[in-house]
Amino acid sequence: MLVQKYKDMLSGKSVIRQLSEFATARGQEIGYENVFDYSLGNPSVPVPQEFTDTMMELLSTKEPSVLHGYSPSLGITSVREKIAASLEKRFGIPYRKEHIFMASGAAGALAHAFRLVTEPGDEILTFAPFFPEYHPYVDLTGAVLKVVPPNTENFQINFEAFEEMLTDKVMAVMINTPNNPSGIVYSTETVKRLADTLKRKSDEYGHDIYIISDEPYREIIFEGVDAPCVSSFYDNTIMCYSFSKSLSLPGERIGYVAINPACKDAETMVYMCGQISRGIGHNCPPSIIQLAVAEVLDMTAELSVYETNMNLIYNELVDLGFTVVKPGGTFYIFPKALEEDSKKFCEKALKYDLVLVPGDSFGAPGYFRMAYCIDTEKVERSLVALRKFVTEEYGK
Amino acid sequence: MLVQKYKDMLSGKSVIRQLSEFATARGQEIGYENVFDYSLGNPSVPVPQEFTDTMMELLSTKEPSVLHGYSPSLGITSVREKIAASLEKRFGIPYRKEHIFMASGAAGALAHAFRLVTEPGDEILTFAPFFPEYHPYVDLTGAVLKVVPPNTENFQINFEAFEEMLTDKVMAVMINTPNNPSGIVYSTETVKRLADTLKRKSDEYGHDIYIISDEPYREIIFEGVDAPCVSSFYDNTIMCYSFSKSLSLPGERIGYVAINPACKDAETMVYMCGQISRGIGHNCPPSIIQLAVAEVLDMTAELSVYETNMNLIYNELVDLGFTVVKPGGTFYIFPKALEEDSKKFCEKALKYDLVLVPGDSFGAPGYFRMAYCIDTEKVERSLVALRKFVTEEYGK
Repeated sequence: MLVQKYKDMLSGKSVIRQLSEFATARGQEIGYENVFDYSLGNPSVPVPQEFTDTMMELLSTKEPSVLHGYSPSLGITSVREKIAASLEKRFGIPYRKEHIFMASGAAGALAHAFRLVTEPGDEILTFAPFFPEYHPYVDLTGAVLKVVPPNTENFQINFEAFEEMLTDKVMAVMINTPNNPSGIVYSTETVKRLADTLKRKSDEYGHDIYIISDEPYREIIFEGVDAPCVSSFYDNTIMCYSFSKSLSLPGERIGYVAINPACKDAETMVYMCGQISRGIGHNCPPSIIQLAVAEVLDMTAELSVYETNMNLIYNELVDLGFTVVKPGGTFYIFPKALEEDSKKFCEKALKYDLVLVPGDSFGAPGYFRMAYCIDTEKVERSLVALRKFVTEEYGK
Repeated sequence: MLVQKYKDMLSGKSVIRQLSEFATARGQEIGYENVFDYSLGNPSVPVPQEFTDTMMELLSTKEPSVLHGYSPSLGITSVREKIAASLEKRFGIPYRKEHIFMASGAAGALAHAFRLVTEPGDEILTFAPFFPEYHPYVDLTGAVLKVVPPNTENFQINFEAFEEMLTDKVMAVMINTPNNPSGIVYSTETVKRLADTLKRKSDEYGHDIYIISDEPYREIIFEGVDAPCVSSFYDNTIMCYSFSKSLSLPGERIGYVAINPACKDAETMVYMCGQISRGIGHNCPPSIIQLAVAEVLDMTAELSVYETNMNLIYNELVDLGFTVVKPGGTFYIFPKALEEDSKKFCEKALKYDLVLVPGDSFGAPGYFRMAYCIDTEKVERSLVALRKFVTEEYGK
């Protein structure tokens, strides 16, 4: 008998996926260059040449049975050492290889983090707007994901609602800063207040509450933005990182879990990740990708295009009278729609070949997401379509 | 609070891993070439040059943001098509891409298979001797792994014990042919009888019973051996394949699930695998490795060395009076120890720098495993040590 819960999931198609499929189909009709596809968060700039060069060198010089051999279950030791050193240099936190567990992208890292600190029935809180995949990620572990409603003024944390929901059933709080879909970066003030709240509540409840910090957009920060390192403010932080966006290689599934060295039992937690892997079939990210990434840890793809795009879009949105919080990073922006039902708004936009994603599945109905990881030239043309859409449909 | 079950697992160190660590440490004392390390199943022959060439070509010719872009969640379509075509040509079963789900090696494939057909509390049967990792793989899903005792005469299936254990709680039977650790290949007679038994019991219990066929050693078959394709004999077969051993790239985590097209709801099952992935953080094997493997599907590494090694070892074991079943494939052999306690036997062997693994964790105490994926020259030298060990310790 097939397991019903997975069968049931098949009927609930992802809105983002449906819109992306629409964009592809429409592209076949009118040319993809004429579809203003803001649906998917797929990086648009190439991986640094140094990564490709390292891959070529590994393939041409390293003994194949060593190069492609099994990785130790926690990751290749030299790679873990290099990541720890890079993090220490960057954030001044004394990471060692003992705090690093190599994972298959952020999804792999999160799958381990949830299992480290929650049993079925325990609660994890996150904050709207949030990445909709968090629901299946958490729900399928047996833990319960609860979503704190958004602070729509600036998309920082709605602390009043948060404190109400932070009961003693909550074992972890998952944050995502810089944030998908809002592009907002939590300020030092927000992170400090979050840390203080969690310390107070941990003491009150007599059990640890962990921060699971999902940081795939960490390297995409815009000029002048205050972007504090969460682990610096709270000991019990499990950092989940992916190189997908910073290096533009989402398909190669490479990232890591970094346990704050100040976290109680930090080293044990890394070994526990190795045990969790056995139950979920994880068994390490690919060896050659681990080795290649370790050589470009402090590099990024040419990410500046995202800020260029953001400024163009933000200015136009403001000019058109949208309510919109200016992103501090990522390649997302999350404006308020021009009518209450953002699904209808996004549906109307399709007539202008503008593919926008309604905010409902991100926990913020009435808003919409634009993923501006596309060519700047296309962004410019899209803004002509946006103005036409807004003028014709909403008389702006 | 950290989750106790993973913490508890840390105390139970793998015997294979401990022996492998001993071998490495001893190698640092006397030179690794002098340690006859039969502990680990790490392929010793290089990946075919064509794989490396394809990787280099992809890296130097393909647009990086496409090459390293997200794979669709079921795997890259063209890769799934090629695998289906290769399987159809090879086994005469009408596989299509709709039956193929790309997975991170056999461990990833199995993690999906278990979740497809079992709920917590359901039973999965497997047959001793068996790969010890099956226990954490299954136990951590909440299903229950039960092990049918071995047929020590020839390591085919002990059908009498099997029928007794095949209650209506059993939802799947996991087999591994060619087998780790025995090297035995199930004969057509065995597979037919297994299929007949499962059909009869499925009817009796009124629910499907699946075969989960773990086939990482499928390409390592020795001359003249009858090696039937399990899926040809039983509709409800979930094939779990890995390229780790056939292409010698265990570290790159690449394999697939192939659902028998004759299986009821075969295509739905592949989509369900995509949903299961969301809960376990799987998200596809690396894009570049998928693309490269697709170009060498019908090739293997130069596997003949394993048969050469097997013949040398088998003949010597027979000559020394061991009870041993001749392997039909893999790079393992599983003789009976010369004393009842095979742990003691293996401990004594260490004095001769022979690293053998006791059969206890494989569900067959009294036996021991040798993984002969090492250089033939070293095998030859090891046999001198083996003779010395047996003569001095057991007066043979």
